[in-house]
This record gives sequence, C-alpha cells and structure tokens, in this order.
Amino acid sequence: MNTTENITIVLNNPKYPGNIGSAARCAKNMGIESLFVVVHEYPDMEEMKKRATHVASDIVENMRYFYRLDEALSGFNYIVGTTSRLGSARGPVIQPREMAKQIADISQNNRVAILFGPEDAGLNNDELKYCHLLVTIPTSDELKSINLSHAVMILCYEIFTARTPSPNRFTPKLATSFELEGMYDHLKEMLVKINYINPENPDYWMTNIRRFLSRTKLFSKEAQIIRGICRKVERSIENKKA
Amino acid sequence: MNTTENITIVLNNPKYPGNIGSAARCAKNMGIESLFVVVHEYPDMEEMKKRATHVASDIVENMRYFYRLDEALSGFNYIVGTTSRLGSARGPVIQPREMAKQIADISQNNRVAILFGPEDAGLNNDELKYCHLLVTIPTSDELKSINLSHAVMILCYEIFTARTPSPNRFTPKLATSFELEGMYDHLKEMLVKINYINPENPDYWMTNIRRFLSRTKLFSKEAQIIRGICRKVERSIENKKA
Repeated sequence: MNTTENITIVLNNPKYPGNIGSAARCAKNMGIESLFVVVHEYPDMEEMKKRATHVASDIVENMRYFYRLDEALSGFNYIVGTTSRLGSARGPVIQPREMAKQIADISQNNRVAILFGPEDAGLNNDELKYCHLLVTIPTSDELKSINLSHAVMILCYEIFTARTPSPNRFTPKLATSFELEGMYDHLKEMLVKINYINPENPDYWMTNIRRFLSRTKLFSKEAQIIRGICRKVERSIENKKA
Repeated sequence: MNTTENITIVLNNPKYPGNIGSAARCAKNMGIESLFVVVHEYPDMEEMKKRATHVASDIVENMRYFYRLDEALSGFNYIVGTTSRLGSARGPVIQPREMAKQIADISQNNRVAILFGPEDAGLNNDELKYCHLLVTIPTSDELKSINLSHAVMILCYEIFTARTPSPNRFTPKLATSFELEGMYDHLKEMLVKINYINPENPDYWMTNIRRFLSRTKLFSKEAQIIRGICRKVERSIENKKA
C-alpha cells in the first residue's frame, strides 16, 4: 500500500457543491483518491461533477457521506485539522510543508484524514479536538480567507511534493566541456574573421563572451546551433571574397 | 519597494470570468496585488467580483486589459511561463519551489510576470518564447490538468512562503525541565500511592510513562493539569482512608 492510498480528504459541512467537486479535482491532481463529506443533505451531483471534470468524477461518485463528524473520523489513525485562527487555546499550529513531511512518514502505516471545516466558519474547537495536528496556510494579512478548494489544493500539493523528491522534472542534456571548447574556438575564429575581436589578443575579448554564455548553461543542441551560425558567417564571407 | 509589488500575474486569454476572479482572490491571499489579462472581449465583471470576494474586488477593478500578449509583457524584466507539457523543445522546466527561490531574489530589483495560458490549451511555443524561465506544477499522471486558479494559487503560495521564513507561526510555551521534573516526581508519588507501580523500583516503570509524555512536547499549562489530576487522586485516597 503506498502512502496516498492511506490519505483521505474530509470535508466537514461544505456549503457549496462546486467546492466539493473542485476539491475532488485537486485531490486527484495530487494523487489522492479518497474523499469523505459530512453533510446533512446530499449535495447536487451535477454541480459537483462539473467542477471535478470528467477525469475526477470517479472520486465524486465514490465519495463517502456521513451525518456526523465523529463517524467520518472513526477509522483514522491520524487526523490533521486545518485552521486559519491561531491562539494559545488551539495549541501548536504548523505550516503545510512541515505537515507534509510528517504525513509522508505517518501515512506509511496509518490511515490519515486531512480535515477541512465549512467555507464560512472553519472548524470550531469542538471539531478540532479530534485532531492530532493542526495546520494553517500562511497568508497575507490583507485577505486571510482562502477558498475551500484552494486550501485543499495547497495541502494536497505539499503532500504530493513531499513524496516526489526530484526538484527538476526535466532538464535537457547540457553541452560537454569538449563541445563547449570546440564551440568557443570556432566562435573565436569567426569573430577574428569578421574583425570583431583583435587577432593579437583574442582571448581577452573572448572572456566577456564566455562569461555570459556559460551563465546560460548551454545544451549540446545549442552549442551546435552557435557553431552552425559561425559556419554560415564564414561561408558568407568566403562567398563575398570569391 | 518590496518584492510582491514587483510581481504581476498575467493571464493569457482566460476563457472563464470566474477563473479570473478566483485567481484575483488567490493572488490577494498571497500578497500579490497586480493582475493583467490578455483578452479580446471584456470578461463579465459581476462574475469576476463574485469569485474574487469583496476583499479582492479591488484587484479585479484595477486589473489591466491588453489585446496582445507582447504588449502585456513589454514592461517586465523577467517572465516566468507555466506549462504542463514537457519536452526537449521547451528547454529546462523547473518546479514551483525552485522558481519561488529565484523570484525572491530577482523581484527585488526587477518587475516579474508570472504568465498562465488559457484553461484548455495552456501556453503554446510561440507564447513561451517570451519566458526567461519555465515552471511546471508536479501532478499525478492520472490527472495532469489543473484548474487555472488553482495553478495560480500554487505559484503564489510558493512565492509567498519563499519570502516568509518562519516554519511555525505559533507554538505555545513548552514546559521547562524544572516544571516537567516536578510533574514526573508528583506523578511517580501518586502512582506508587495507587499501587500502579512498584515502590521498590519506581523509576523502571516511570521510564515508559516519561517516554510517551516527552514525545508529546508538553506545555506549562498541561504539566500543571497533570499535577492537578495527581492532587485530586491523592485527596480522594486520603478522604477514603479517613
């Protein structure tokens, strides 16, 4: 069992079906497939599916409904509560990144619920008492209220990235030093031919060019492009002379 | 001028006014106040404001409209393009966290645009050519398509958290070692009195109790609560004896 299979998003009394569907899409974007809702009336299925999009509609279809929060949470080993209000009565509150680190470990062997309150009021103290850990999303003081599905996205994103270590998804192959030196030699010859640099002290001028080209971290293909340009310039000069 | 004043969200041909409003709210949540849109028709103001909520409606009102992408981008020193498609033709693509680190530095002295394509197609190669840096949000392979405003939220959140170093927003005062040892002594006496632990070797049994209590990182107030319980137990025993 991998870690995401052990993670469930639990929405306590969400008011808008659109937010539930949107939360389902966010969860699926980040590899989380399990969604529980605590509601007193069934939310509009069409509205939920519209916002979930076709691909995440299975999450909405398989979503489990509960009438009471304690019933929804009863099968979990570890419960993370989300809150935007901070105070000594609430105990320690950590940020999403730190939460994700802890969850990556705990979810290996435990069922974890990430619990969100209703859009307007959030979780109250009576609901937060079920939680082993409280998390708050840092915001600007100007607007602290985050839309429910966007809060779900940030926590799911942090959980997902905590599990995928690679900082870069794709970097093409950089040019080798051999390729680069060949390119610089070619460039130098060409720049001398077009009288851009002094043939008596070409390396002095090349230093400046090397400096900015090395900062750009050239790829093999790009080194070839530069040599191709040099060849074209040289041929143009030869043709002119001829 | 602080860094967020130098950062602008640029939406290229967004299809849904609701997404523009929602993106405005996300930007404001994360301290970014500037929003540009490239559109051929003015989007519905009411729909945008509804999703922006009252507090972020100023961003929608002050939003700048452009007919062409190159016009929208002309005043920026550094442009970050978002893409979900990876390939060697697109060059190196980094993840949001790494992007945020770079932006935190660059935005000190430069105007930075974070550019997003339309909901369905994203940015094409012709539009990406303006970008100094490409960023992709990591997703599950099951559903790579992220809603526009949620993509805006993730990048704004990363930019915001890169600027606010504190990992914990609020941690109440932990109990001092003096308070804890007083509590453990009190607890030990009480546990001996109630015959829970052997009075000849109490520390052996206390080790297990200390182990789990120390893992919970007790606060001063909580240490006092435990001593209060001990006192109550002791008084109950004395009253019984009397």
